[in-house]
Amino acid sequence: MLKQIMECVPNFSEGRDKAKIEAIVDCFRNREGVILLDYSSDSDHNRTVVTVAGEVEPLKEAVVCAATKAKEIIDLRIQRGQHPRMGAVDVIPFIPIKNVTAEDAIEVSKEVGKRIWEEVGIPVFLYEKSATRPERENLAKIRKGEFEGMAEKMKSEDWHADFGYDAPHPSAGVVAVGCRMPLVAFNVNLDSKSLEETTATAKKIRHIGGGLHFCKAMGVDLSHRGLMQVSMNMTDYTKTPLYFSYELIGMESKRYGAHIVESEIIGLVPYDALYACAEYVLMCEGKSADEIKELSKHDIIAKARDYLKIADFSEDQVLEVLLDKRNNA
Amino acid sequence: MLKQIMECVPNFSEGRDKAKIEAIVDCFRNREGVILLDYSSDSDHNRTVVTVAGEVEPLKEAVVCAATKAKEIIDLRIQRGQHPRMGAVDVIPFIPIKNVTAEDAIEVSKEVGKRIWEEVGIPVFLYEKSATRPERENLAKIRKGEFEGMAEKMKSEDWHADFGYDAPHPSAGVVAVGCRMPLVAFNVNLDSKSLEETTATAKKIRHIGGGLHFCKAMGVDLSHRGLMQVSMNMTDYTKTPLYFSYELIGMESKRYGAHIVESEIIGLVPYDALYACAEYVLMCEGKSADEIKELSKHDIIAKARDYLKIADFSEDQVLEVLLDKRNNA
Repeated sequence: MLKQIMECVPNFSEGRDKAKIEAIVDCFRNREGVILLDYSSDSDHNRTVVTVAGEVEPLKEAVVCAATKAKEIIDLRIQRGQHPRMGAVDVIPFIPIKNVTAEDAIEVSKEVGKRIWEEVGIPVFLYEKSATRPERENLAKIRKGEFEGMAEKMKSEDWHADFGYDAPHPSAGVVAVGCRMPLVAFNVNLDSKSLEETTATAKKIRHIGGGLHFCKAMGVDLSHRGLMQVSMNMTDYTKTPLYFSYELIGMESKRYGAHIVESEIIGLVPYDALYACAEYVLMCEGKSADEIKELSKHDIIAKARDYLKIADFSEDQVLEVLLDKRNNA
Repeated sequence: MLKQIMECVPNFSEGRDKAKIEAIVDCFRNREGVILLDYSSDSDHNRTVVTVAGEVEPLKEAVVCAATKAKEIIDLRIQRGQHPRMGAVDVIPFIPIKNVTAEDAIEVSKEVGKRIWEEVGIPVFLYEKSATRPERENLAKIRKGEFEGMAEKMKSEDWHADFGYDAPHPSAGVVAVGCRMPLVAFNVNLDSKSLEETTATAKKIRHIGGGLHFCKAMGVDLSHRGLMQVSMNMTDYTKTPLYFSYELIGMESKRYGAHIVESEIIGLVPYDALYACAEYVLMCEGKSADEIKELSKHDIIAKARDYLKIADFSEDQVLEVLLDKRNNA
């Protein structure tokens, strides 16, 4: 059992050469306190996304190791792929999960950023919650122009690196390092026949439409399954719980005579995101907060799954469950 | 019936001398296309708040007239009161209600601001949606230091006026002019005995807590009435409808075994804010959007009142109803 859990999801600009991919991923293997959860490569994108979690200190070492390896074996002057990129290691988000705060993750991102410049020689932009100015919060704005445009872009005072010279590394480019909150991909499927009505619901419940603060949403046509979907990114479940979106979607769908059939969680979800939902519904059923704390992880997950009607859900999608399993493997 | 409705709620730093108050308010009387809805003076605050609505052009004239009058008869060098103030006319918000957009109101605020400097000689800060920089959106930040500190404050480059010299008028100070969205003061009362639980609910449903985008909320102790209250400012009902707050409060209260007893609307509410609530509940009951459009204003208001359990509500609190009444008086 790890005392603290920081997640990291670094993206590398190599998705074709298996030997190179394994050489990078090896940095996250056989390292006390670091657990490799997943990695997946896309040859069209020519990109590999690694999902890893662990305690702060060994995780920092693993990330610096992987950045060093990426610089050695990836040359952006010849790399081509469908995914936009500006660096051999393109982006390194640190995500606080358990017994670490966002402030801790910001601090870690700055330490790692500094080391990537000083020890690896790749200039670093701090992004998202670690950004040093508002226009650097958005990764897309930093990456605009990509590797090929970066030398010119970095001459401008607005785009000097946070760590490093004001020019990209000749073959490895630059990298964005920062803290972001865990993102939960949460979809709610409706027995609706109207994409227009579903999109109207999505627009009302999302932040820019006047809805929930940490919720992005759009309508998706699943008419081949006889359904419509409100597809969401919950960008901070610690503040906007999943059940707020779920209940608002149910409520707003009522005006169109539509109902929630099921929901989906894509990829991993932190345990606390499910706990908040289970706690809510159990309290509504009369249980006290203290009684709920006594329940097993298994019971909490099952309660959240039943309440939110999460379809095709495996306990292994719960970050902490997967971590425990990998840790004991 | 007015073709377009812009509301304006100017605040004047005189709340004691009845003759002076009437001289200012007279600027809003007997003016084609402008309707005085309300004015109230507080002698402790030494301040008068005027609520007026009308068509854009005559409203602009009325406001410039009142600013001129305020400059003539209010001297801040001797004025004292409990309410913080920086000008004889302290703040002038323009609020789009019907057939005018926020962009229109921003434009009007800039035209009026320019005229108040050029014709009246009072320097102007543009605020809220009209602000020229982020730190001027918040009225409190502009007013900080008040009349007495303004001469020193305006020497700083950060606090040069948007219109006028970089010094306050010797006796009339400065004024903030801007566009803001109509604000609805909406409270929901619960059969709860716990201020702590009610405050927890308020914090979860408000924007900074992860809740609804245009909702400010706090818990208020009404234990003398056997109730607790979630007291809200709905800062843009066109995007965050009142029933979103109402339903979320009901939903979140459930976990504490509490229920909504009634709600309150303090002061005026635009008709469209109630229409959105009536439309929602009528659609849930099976009526089409087109059928709902056929209903009378009276029926819509009654439906919204019943749905939201608004206590002690008079139709005269609906801005457009009051306008019609005053217009025909």
